[in-house]
Amino acid sequence: MIGIFDSGVGGLTVVRELQKELPEYDLIYFGDTARTPYGNKSKETIIKYALEDADFLIARGAHVLVVACNTVSALGIDALRKRYPDIPIFEVITPAVKKAIELSNNKRIGIIGTRATIGSGIYEKKIAEEGRFSVISKACPLFVPFIEEGWHKSAELKRIARRYLDGLKNENPDVLILGCTHYPIIKDIIQVKIGRRTRLVDSALSIAQEIKKLLFSDKGLDNKLSKNKELKIYLSDKTPHSINIVNKILGNNVNIYEDSDNF
Amino acid sequence: MIGIFDSGVGGLTVVRELQKELPEYDLIYFGDTARTPYGNKSKETIIKYALEDADFLIARGAHVLVVACNTVSALGIDALRKRYPDIPIFEVITPAVKKAIELSNNKRIGIIGTRATIGSGIYEKKIAEEGRFSVISKACPLFVPFIEEGWHKSAELKRIARRYLDGLKNENPDVLILGCTHYPIIKDIIQVKIGRRTRLVDSALSIAQEIKKLLFSDKGLDNKLSKNKELKIYLSDKTPHSINIVNKILGNNVNIYEDSDNF
Repeated sequence: MIGIFDSGVGGLTVVRELQKELPEYDLIYFGDTARTPYGNKSKETIIKYALEDADFLIARGAHVLVVACNTVSALGIDALRKRYPDIPIFEVITPAVKKAIELSNNKRIGIIGTRATIGSGIYEKKIAEEGRFSVISKACPLFVPFIEEGWHKSAELKRIARRYLDGLKNENPDVLILGCTHYPIIKDIIQVKIGRRTRLVDSALSIAQEIKKLLFSDKGLDNKLSKNKELKIYLSDKTPHSINIVNKILGNNVNIYEDSDNF
Repeated sequence: MIGIFDSGVGGLTVVRELQKELPEYDLIYFGDTARTPYGNKSKETIIKYALEDADFLIARGAHVLVVACNTVSALGIDALRKRYPDIPIFEVITPAVKKAIELSNNKRIGIIGTRATIGSGIYEKKIAEEGRFSVISKACPLFVPFIEEGWHKSAELKRIARRYLDGLKNENPDVLILGCTHYPIIKDIIQVKIGRRTRLVDSALSIAQEIKKLLFSDKGLDNKLSKNKELKIYLSDKTPHSINIVNKILGNNVNIYEDSDNF
């Protein structure tokens, strides 16, 4: 099974892309809705929670781990690889950085994300490893609450988006990385506010393509993964509200389980 | 010591009022910033976290517990009283309801709060016990993220407030209960949007007055409480951002400790 986890339900945008790219593969998803969001927490707390999330999926038979959470990808990946040295662990940052570098002509790359992701400086670091680029980053902590409120098409969100993105736009990046798995849901608004000349990089899509590539080249790993088109979703807190967002992202035909004992 | 806890730092508005009403008393505060917010979580998860929060304060010598969190007051108070039958436990709902009933002339009372608080129906239930009132309630989940973003005076928040409160205003309540400890911070905006004819009831202020009354009438309890003007603040996750909000509410002269082991 491919195990995917996120601080909440936003990582289901990665599941959606995995289902398109690898429709046969069994997926198990864990969303830590009891302790969401991670984006404003400290590094220590994020690592602690990330290890618990990974333990949950490994215990249920995951052979590949996908960290569908930018905050954990930014701050917890070393700890995860240390705990599980034999498990391939994918994170959302590297594929998005690769894609952005491939697409950028003017070598000016923008990044938006949670406070913890942006504060970590991880995107700047990874981009600097690839060459000389100007990186312009901006934390947008209100995007997630707006999406979770269901106001993802509201006039208010458009104003908020303008306020967050105006300064970024003035710096003329020709690529903007959506550094949070919730953001693809408001892609259209972000595109309008940042302007048509800036291309958006969706980390959900990039990571799914990256995993597909690896599985096609590593048949040993591929053989370990079951392929019955199954998707199991576990949440640490199952509420009408969280179910509603799951259905908004994936449609209504999904099984949602709760495990609140360990979180 | 008087122990106060909240899902995060919003409950410090209660500490601020306690310091005004009972300046001599030692206070110990626990804010569960690692797992904040509670307002969108299920009842089971809220109870589990509330018991852990209370255990933390009792273990550190609290003789009185103040639940400075509307969500826990709405959903976790029975579980807390069962766990600690001998400790006086104050919650923020009853004092606010009493105050609202005292102030209302047209018998139409408005309530705003988190999704969990409003969904619990607890205010309606408590108000119905006191007589025939019309109760108009509205969940305002974006107020807390806006306050925590530091945009508590922004034009965007004013628009959001209008969107949340317009329907409420049309129902003509003459009293509006601020059913979340964060809301006193944006009192002015709420007052403008709901209109001058509606009086606001601040649960932070109401609870501090209620505790003062009880301590003056129960000298046995009062004698148990130390009075050295000390305030200790514990957070389950101490970040620059959470420290910033603590300082915004209480000023800079506070000691903030972290206990992340148990949360």
